[in-house]
Amino acid sequence: MDVTAPAHRLSAAVSAASRLLPARAGLRLHADAAGLTVAGVASDLAVRFDCPATTHTDGSVVVPAAPLAETLKVLDAEQVRLVVEGSRLALRLDNARFALPLLPDADVASDPPARVAEVDGAAFASALRIVAGTAAKDDPLPLFTGVRLQSSGDRLTLTASDRYRMAVARLPLRTPGSLDVLVPAALLSEAARQAGGIVGLHLGPGRFGLSWRGGLVATAVLDAGFLSEESIASGAVDTTVSLEADALAAAVRRVGVYAEDRRVLTLEVGDAQIRLASARQNAGEAEETLKAQVGGGRTSPSFQARYLLDALGAFAGEQVTLAIQPGMRACVLRAAEPGEVELTYYLMPMLPR
Amino acid sequence: MDVTAPAHRLSAAVSAASRLLPARAGLRLHADAAGLTVAGVASDLAVRFDCPATTHTDGSVVVPAAPLAETLKVLDAEQVRLVVEGSRLALRLDNARFALPLLPDADVASDPPARVAEVDGAAFASALRIVAGTAAKDDPLPLFTGVRLQSSGDRLTLTASDRYRMAVARLPLRTPGSLDVLVPAALLSEAARQAGGIVGLHLGPGRFGLSWRGGLVATAVLDAGFLSEESIASGAVDTTVSLEADALAAAVRRVGVYAEDRRVLTLEVGDAQIRLASARQNAGEAEETLKAQVGGGRTSPSFQARYLLDALGAFAGEQVTLAIQPGMRACVLRAAEPGEVELTYYLMPMLPR
Repeated sequence: MDVTAPAHRLSAAVSAASRLLPARAGLRLHADAAGLTVAGVASDLAVRFDCPATTHTDGSVVVPAAPLAETLKVLDAEQVRLVVEGSRLALRLDNARFALPLLPDADVASDPPARVAEVDGAAFASALRIVAGTAAKDDPLPLFTGVRLQSSGDRLTLTASDRYRMAVARLPLRTPGSLDVLVPAALLSEAARQAGGIVGLHLGPGRFGLSWRGGLVATAVLDAGFLSEESIASGAVDTTVSLEADALAAAVRRVGVYAEDRRVLTLEVGDAQIRLASARQNAGEAEETLKAQVGGGRTSPSFQARYLLDALGAFAGEQVTLAIQPGMRACVLRAAEPGEVELTYYLMPMLPR
Repeated sequence: MDVTAPAHRLSAAVSAASRLLPARAGLRLHADAAGLTVAGVASDLAVRFDCPATTHTDGSVVVPAAPLAETLKVLDAEQVRLVVEGSRLALRLDNARFALPLLPDADVASDPPARVAEVDGAAFASALRIVAGTAAKDDPLPLFTGVRLQSSGDRLTLTASDRYRMAVARLPLRTPGSLDVLVPAALLSEAARQAGGIVGLHLGPGRFGLSWRGGLVATAVLDAGFLSEESIASGAVDTTVSLEADALAAAVRRVGVYAEDRRVLTLEVGDAQIRLASARQNAGEAEETLKAQVGGGRTSPSFQARYLLDALGAFAGEQVTLAIQPGMRACVLRAAEPGEVELTYYLMPMLPR
């Protein structure tokens, strides 16, 4: 293999692939007349990025991803030439040479499953940023570490939960198609963050993939049952509170300073206002009152401050409505005026202090 | 006590004091016709900041610093009113109230020692940022955790070392005076970072202080002998290398990716160039050549990459000259064209790989 590529484009492709792959994974570089492709060598996970390049001699090699990504990131050059030298892949520059050992290749499938639908990349990434944030980072039940992607007509629904909160986002499909899968949340988030433009959704037996201009990720799906919005009863709403999400978040941050270790705050619902109060031994006490549109009864739920802040963060810059149910039933947050992405955030209350 | 103060000015004073005080320290707030002062309640350490205020009732209270600083930081108000309510200090706003428990006062001296000299705050902070960076964070010998401040005529010399490197900076005194003290590096750095304008240097029996407009810090000095630049022999220089500090730093970063765990790199001095090379099992090898002005012999020292990067960082944007001595003697770095602050950085070589 002997190929010359623009250093910053190659760096972008290699670092995008590295972020999607497990640590210590190998990268397969393949050069031919069409340019250079950078693919992951990992089981159950296909990652592929294209990079423009001028190929002098076709070829394919596998090298460790981490030192290649690190070197390209700090390179100060327009072009880099990659040449196989015996058991090394050399990166040649005018005044420098870096050489990586070749690794044995593994025969892993990198073909994507079939493209079944399309979505706008920006709306998808913005919805997923919130929804994937409510999945558990680590949980003995894989169900709580995934995001469910479910189509219905020309709408795509994204759902995730870690038991304490659940987020559900609906957004338009550009090209409708049928799917219902549970995909690892961390990988999906990183892929959506990288994807741009129109994003293809791919589906095959036990596999799900995303593709966009120059990039592709496909993974085994979680076979772990399904999260469902319907499983959360929300028929008992008796109190609604509407106010600016940012104003409530700021008050939660201030009053939360004085909350005990569990940082549970009660939203005392009053007439046209809500009141937050807390106290902590040795630190003192705090209370703050905010104007709000209040409807229905006076049910006053308690929340852990950081979960409430996470939930309000999803509605930053917006007017949010909290639909409150009595007892230990979820509080339902929605934007007063939803945009292209329709978000519903369920937050479980805590026992009050 | 009953006093109204601009919230952002009070927040700045309280957070400046908190950063200089040990965790869990108390703050004494004192209000009278002259305004509000915020002082630390800690032994061996005096910290005092002024804040403009309108005093309705004179008084003095001690409260825990951390919750007060945290609350003021996130407050969204122009003015805050502080009122003693029984055993509480209340922060009153239109729609909120925060109350802190009063702590018992302690009779700690907060008078500064006598002002003996003055220095320009910006030059002092810039010199100290580099010099304090070469002090040890933690060392059984307090000698290596301090910065020596030593006057000689109208010049102030700052010296610190952690054994592996030593930095010496000389800068003009605006008002000359006699001093030679060893001051804890971490406290001095934080104080210099906060100080602005003209900075007073204060000296008393066993104490050293800094003062600037609205702020004062005084601490017990380290009684631990003195670091001295003269203790580092530098008469055996046989090789000099001059080049851009940033270019060398970038090459060290690239080639360092391929260095073994100790990350020791050798600067191979050649004709009008230097060459960096490294290799690491499984990760590959790297070499890079840089043009440089080379004088004298060809002594090629080895350095730990991160110490070399620290040293080069002190000369960012400048042409640096490395004066190299054979054997395990310090390499001396100086700017080709020193500014107001004259910096000399001694870096101990390592045994080569």
